[in-house]
Parts: sequence; structure tokens; C-alpha cells
Amino acid sequence: MEKRKLFIPGPTEVREEVLEVQRKWMIGHREKDFSELYERIINKLRKVFNTKNEIMVFTSSATGVMEGSVRNLINDKLLSTICGAFSKRWAEIAERCGKKVEKIEVEWGKAIKPEMVEKELKKENYEAILITHNETSTGITNPLKEISEVVKNVSPDTLILVDAVSSLAGIKIDIDEWGIDCIFASVQKCFALPPGLTVCIISEKALKKAEKVKGRGYYFDFLLMKKYFDERKQTPATPAISLLYALDYQLNRMLEEGMEQRFRRHKEMAEKVRNWALNKGFELFPEKGYESNTVTVIKNNKNIDVPGLINNLKHRGFTIANGYGKLKNITFRIGHMGDLTVAEIEELLKNIENLYN
Amino acid sequence: MEKRKLFIPGPTEVREEVLEVQRKWMIGHREKDFSELYERIINKLRKVFNTKNEIMVFTSSATGVMEGSVRNLINDKLLSTICGAFSKRWAEIAERCGKKVEKIEVEWGKAIKPEMVEKELKKENYEAILITHNETSTGITNPLKEISEVVKNVSPDTLILVDAVSSLAGIKIDIDEWGIDCIFASVQKCFALPPGLTVCIISEKALKKAEKVKGRGYYFDFLLMKKYFDERKQTPATPAISLLYALDYQLNRMLEEGMEQRFRRHKEMAEKVRNWALNKGFELFPEKGYESNTVTVIKNNKNIDVPGLINNLKHRGFTIANGYGKLKNITFRIGHMGDLTVAEIEELLKNIENLYN
Repeated sequence: MEKRKLFIPGPTEVREEVLEVQRKWMIGHREKDFSELYERIINKLRKVFNTKNEIMVFTSSATGVMEGSVRNLINDKLLSTICGAFSKRWAEIAERCGKKVEKIEVEWGKAIKPEMVEKELKKENYEAILITHNETSTGITNPLKEISEVVKNVSPDTLILVDAVSSLAGIKIDIDEWGIDCIFASVQKCFALPPGLTVCIISEKALKKAEKVKGRGYYFDFLLMKKYFDERKQTPATPAISLLYALDYQLNRMLEEGMEQRFRRHKEMAEKVRNWALNKGFELFPEKGYESNTVTVIKNNKNIDVPGLINNLKHRGFTIANGYGKLKNITFRIGHMGDLTVAEIEELLKNIENLYN
Repeated sequence: MEKRKLFIPGPTEVREEVLEVQRKWMIGHREKDFSELYERIINKLRKVFNTKNEIMVFTSSATGVMEGSVRNLINDKLLSTICGAFSKRWAEIAERCGKKVEKIEVEWGKAIKPEMVEKELKKENYEAILITHNETSTGITNPLKEISEVVKNVSPDTLILVDAVSSLAGIKIDIDEWGIDCIFASVQKCFALPPGLTVCIISEKALKKAEKVKGRGYYFDFLLMKKYFDERKQTPATPAISLLYALDYQLNRMLEEGMEQRFRRHKEMAEKVRNWALNKGFELFPEKGYESNTVTVIKNNKNIDVPGLINNLKHRGFTIANGYGKLKNITFRIGHMGDLTVAEIEELLKNIENLYN
């Protein structure tokens, strides 16, 4: 396999020096060395996300924690907000876990608006609302701050659960200030790490709720994770140690860059891609004003040969993504997240242009 | 952290060349390169375990798949066989998933006997029986072949679920011949890999049963895993790609050694440790005739300072384990699994002796 730089919405490009860290020798997960590693990671995550909430790292993709969050925090009924493939998947997962799922659904490419949530919450009581902050399939960033405000005003007991898989560490989220009760992201997106871990941040209110929920299971049980951390700075099951090495190291790099600068860089990369697309006569798929800073979904209104473009870029050492699910043939996607730089985005765009001149 | 060789019952020692493989560059999990990688792994696993059953690799520790197996295959009631901490954990997991759990329980250090299972299965119908092949906390290997025979004779509809976390790839298990319906192991034990993946092998009969089970969930859903594999040789969620690189590579090494030789090597290492312990006046914790070939649990009948021993060995570059759970102060454990050699075991034992001469 030849090396290609990843401009897809996850797994994203991982720097050589970060990949290297994975090869450190193994340690036992019940040893002091491990407890020190895990506690160090949790402390750094606390700094990076500026939160007082409980932080846990699961060995699984975020899909596992999407399921875990529902099993831990909901006895009966929740409100799901659907605007694309991944928010739809979360609703499906909740249904598969036997929960009653009411839905606010908008056309793909549109954002969930606070008013929609307000209207629904005034009609009925929900234990929780599921919000996908950044919908990777459509390139929409939902107005999380405004939606959270509405939830807290209209229905303060409703827990706010957020899938931030493709935004956490790339787009600013003020977790404590906005009152987010459970938020998670896998590390192969804006963290720029190899996949296999999911960071999950949980409020005290949510942990109290979990105590009253039956059928939480074991592997994703928030309370068991908390107990093991409190008692020994360890996890109940054997975690992916080599990936934790990489996370430990990458958090240093994130702190060195500074999170505000990281968010700014994502915004700059996004603007670069959006302006390029518009200048070339493409339209953006997401609704104006809600375009994501981590992935740009471009409408193929010029009817270019997308599979051909992807394939040609491949031979030049770049990977971009086709549309997701039902958008496969009408959009294509450029991921600009993690450690990628504006210069690398420019290089990619120049290569796309070269192919078509 | 200084490098120490791991003689603990997982994570076990991983060879430098295997650790190295993890640092290969990232690829997209929806790309052809990934499908080829994953299919290649499944094909090699099929060879290694000589089975026609369905094979899937989950990104999680085996604890996750212990939960998954129960959620996928049991609607109501199961029979659990308990002989130590991990078999007990599996029963607890099943209860947490809302299943009715009947128990056959023996004193820690004793094995589950086919007669016990026969007696219980003649009294009542169970959808499944849970068997822990190798109980890592007590150093017992249960007579899986004989127990499976009894199940098939007395209650052929009862599914046979096997936790082979610390035996699969180290002790021979004839999965198809013995009629095992679901068997799994995490890769940080006898596979000698970094933790984070679990291999799970499932019979057609079990997959048919899963179709009739509600609440399977999503992340560990066997049928969804099968569908994604059949259709695209991929997994439903993003898998731990760098760990799959290592698994792919390590399976070559296992096939090169040959599985019969691998099992023989484990037996030789075990005999070396057991004979050494007995010669030094220690007693073995497990019942005679059921001692594990992957981990030896030694009774501290000589009342040596075990924490002192572990600490002194640490400074010489070796890690062994104390007793597990309630056996912490009365036993200590030497793991001899994965890629460790008889020569390395001899070196460890010589160092223990040096410390006490």
C-alpha cells in the first residue's frame, strides 16, 4: 500500500511522530505505570476541554458510546434530532436498545433549529435529547449552544446528549457553560489519532440519572468506569494501551498548539475549501450559515466524474471522500480536521485543479 | 518507564517487530485497502482456528464481547458455570443485561466437571451455557471438550458459549468438532498483541438464534457485523486500524510457527513452571489434572513476600502477577502465553531463584 494523505472525514491524517508512539513496549493494565498514564491522560483532557465533568476513555469506536450513552441515561423515552446519516444511526441505535424514540427530522443538508426543539419540548417530556453536533454526512454544524439554551429553559430535567464525533477538538464547545450532560468523540477525527478509542465527558447530573437506569450493561457502564477510575485510576476492562500512548502524546501536541489556535486553524482550512469550491462554480451542500469547519460537503452541480477525481487524486497521494449513503452520487467531501494545515489544504486544492486544467 | 518483559496473564509480551507494524500510515476504513486487509485477516483466522464458522473482529476488550454474546444469543435464561473471577464476571454481565442466570458454582481452584453440567441440563432447559475455558484467576482449564459433549447429548438446542480469552491460540480447541457456538478471545493474551481487539467465532446455529433475539443493540450486533462483512468486507463502525495491522502481521507469524507447535510450546512452558514450583516446595493452586498451560497460579504456602518478589523482579526487568481478587494474598501468578519461549521462562525462573539464594 502506498502512503496517501487523508483528507477524509475520519480516519484523518496522523502525523508520523504520533504513529511512532504506538510502538512503545506493553505494560500491564493493573500496574502503577498504567494508572499514571491513564490519570495523566484524563488530566490533560480536562485542560483541553476545560471541563469539570467526569471524563472517561472507552476502547471502542464512538458508535459503541452512542449505544452506551442511551443504555446508561435513558429508561424510556428520548427526543432524537435527525439531519443526516449519523444522527439517524443514533436514533436507530436507541430503538435497538428498546427505547421509545420521538424524532425531529429535517431534510439532509439543513440544520436543526432551536425553535424546532422548543416546540417539541413544550408539547412533551423527554428524559434526554440527542443532538449530533457536526453531521459528517451532510457537512452541517448544528447550533448546539442555542439548542442547549432552549432545552435548559423549556425542560431543565431533559439531559443533553451530544455526538461530537467529528467536531470535538476541532470546533469550540463550551461543555460546562452550555450544560452538556454527555458528549463524546472518537479519536480518529479532530484528535488526529488512529481509531480505537472514544473520549466521553459526563455531567454529575447524568451520572446521578445513570444510578436510576436499569440495563446499563457492563462494558459501557459509566458508573463502573467512574468507580475504577476513582479507586485505582484504571478501567474495568483491558484498554487499548498502545492507542492510549498515542493519545497521551497527542494531547501534549494539542496543548502546545493551544485549543483556540486549533479551532482557528480548522476555521481557516474550512474557509479555504469553501471559497475554492464556490470560486470553481460548485455549490455547498449544507444550508448557508451552518457549514462545518471540519468537513466540507460539496454538491456535484457541475456533474464532474467524482470516482475519477478520487482515483486520480489517489495516484497523486491524496484521499478525499465521496458522498455518504444516499448522497453518494450527488456530493463529494473534503475533510479538513485534526492536524492538517492550511498549506496542506492548498496543496490538495492545487492538485485537484491541475487534474482539471 | 523502563522496559520489562511481561510474564503476566495478559497483556502479555509483544515482540518488537509486531509493535513496529502498528505505526504504518492510516487508511480509510471505507477504502478498498481496508477491505483487503480485513478479509485477509478473516481468512488467516479461519486457517489458524480451522473453522467454518463466522469470524468477526471487534474493537473492544473481550469484556465487551462477553456482553455482546449474551445480548445477541439469549432472550431469557442461561446456565452459567462459575469457578473464578472471570466466569463470575460473565454471570454478572448477563444479569446486568437483564437475563435470568442459573449457576453451577465450584470452589475457586476446582474445575467444572461434565457430570455437574449433565445433572443441571437434565433438570431444566437453558437457551445457552456459559463456559470459561481457561479461568485466568485460578489457573484452571475446564474440560471443554467433555462438557460440550454432554451439552450436545443432553440438551442439543442449548448454545455453547465459551470465554477462551486466555486460551485461544495457546491451547488447542477444536471449535467445529466440539460444536462450540460462540467463542471469543482478546488479542493481548495468547495472540501476543497489544490489547484493543477481540476475535469472535460464531456458528450458523447461533446466528440463526440471534435473528430471534430482541435488544441485541448495535455495536456488538453479530448480524450487523456479518452483513457488513458479506457486503463489503468491512465493519459497521470504524475499527482500530493500527491494531488490525498488527493482527494481520502476527497471524503470519503464528502460521509460520504452526499451531500444533504453538500449543506444544505453551505446554512445555507450563510444565517448566509447574515443575519448578513443585521442586521449590510450592503447591499449585488449581486442582490436579486441570492446570492451565497458559498461566500457572502458585499457592504461597511457603509464605514468601510476594509484593517484595514482584518488586525485585521489576528491577531486573521482569513482570509477574499477584493473585487475582480474593486470591491476591494467597497466590501469585506466572503467565506463559503468546510468543514467550521456554528459554525466556527459564531465564525468569533463574532470576527468581537468584533473588532467594
